[in-house]
Amino acid sequence: MNQDELKQLVGTAAVDFVKDGMVLGLGTGSTAKYMVDALGKKIKEEHLNIVGVPTSERTKKHANSLGITTKSMDDVDHIDLTIDGADQIDKNFQGIKGGGASHLREKIVAINSTKNIWIVDKSKMVDKFGSFPIPIEVIPYGSRQLFKRLKEKGYHPKFRMDEKKHVITDSSNWVIDLDIHEIDNPRQLATDLEHMTGIVEHGLFLDIVNTVIVGRDSGPQIIQVR
Amino acid sequence: MNQDELKQLVGTAAVDFVKDGMVLGLGTGSTAKYMVDALGKKIKEEHLNIVGVPTSERTKKHANSLGITTKSMDDVDHIDLTIDGADQIDKNFQGIKGGGASHLREKIVAINSTKNIWIVDKSKMVDKFGSFPIPIEVIPYGSRQLFKRLKEKGYHPKFRMDEKKHVITDSSNWVIDLDIHEIDNPRQLATDLEHMTGIVEHGLFLDIVNTVIVGRDSGPQIIQVR
Repeated sequence: MNQDELKQLVGTAAVDFVKDGMVLGLGTGSTAKYMVDALGKKIKEEHLNIVGVPTSERTKKHANSLGITTKSMDDVDHIDLTIDGADQIDKNFQGIKGGGASHLREKIVAINSTKNIWIVDKSKMVDKFGSFPIPIEVIPYGSRQLFKRLKEKGYHPKFRMDEKKHVITDSSNWVIDLDIHEIDNPRQLATDLEHMTGIVEHGLFLDIVNTVIVGRDSGPQIIQVR
Repeated sequence: MNQDELKQLVGTAAVDFVKDGMVLGLGTGSTAKYMVDALGKKIKEEHLNIVGVPTSERTKKHANSLGITTKSMDDVDHIDLTIDGADQIDKNFQGIKGGGASHLREKIVAINSTKNIWIVDKSKMVDKFGSFPIPIEVIPYGSRQLFKRLKEKGYHPKFRMDEKKHVITDSSNWVIDLDIHEIDNPRQLATDLEHMTGIVEHGLFLDIVNTVIVGRDSGPQIIQVR
């Protein structure tokens, strides 16, 4: 199977965890998109009563186009389950997210969810972080100075651009990718980034996922993490 | 002297530290306003070449109206000195700022300044924090859930409102005030708040100030801290 087929495989497998009446966090990205497709189909076929909480304006539009009811995080009391992709998952099932610049809302939705499922094709599973840059969402004001600080720390920062313009998040902030090749201690890195002024949120998702579904040629592998 | 006179006293005293050619961070609030007034006068009288980096749109307007040249944090390489007010200063010279909802930019400017001076009337000097709420700037999305979390932690959160509307910061975020009556360990509180998703910046300014100027009836008291 090619990568797209593996993404579709896990996107479809994930909706087996969806039950009638659930409030469901809906992730962002190419793999999550397949899940939303499968969810729309399941809701129609089984006449389910589901409320989706999208993690981006993009996902909201896509879900609505399939007839899925959506609400904002602030209009629901809780989320039963969130299904989202991940850019990388290490051997301790910690994750990197933010390749799609939506990690702030994704993290807000994730920490308010009773359960989190991540769906990934096999290429996202790594032993140790280092090959995928850590995205951080930053306040535009003062970001030139923040960039200098990150550089001094050896974090190899790079503003994320789209044809010479800054990529703008749903909260009107900018994104910097940190191309750190050796990440021995993700927790220490997270704490350091949290302490820095001007960083709204980093893309390290630690101790969050409950179930990982990995797309493999032999089929979806379901891993119960915690 | 009344409180306003004490504020004016320290605002005026602070500009003695200003030297020709400096890039100067300009604080926000009623005490900083007096300093900007005195600075405008000094620049005119002594024909000084000063660039101001304002910590809010409010201060920018005020400075410009007095003929002070201003630049954004991102348009200068460094700041020589920042003069700002504080809402409270404890016996270890740690500070609380954000009563004016400008603590994010104030902190960005402060950490990029070689030296920081805080100017306060005597009522701001306290033994221990607890009587002034800690302001936090928060991402509006998901803030209802964040509020619940803060409440569960016993931090007594309160959205800062202006006639039933949320106060909006210069970065388009909201403010929550934490009315924590007993703050035994400001550093621990800061770390906890930094770790929480959805909080952009808290109003605890730790290990930042170099010189404090306190307005007392006997005159300005200048304290060299670090």
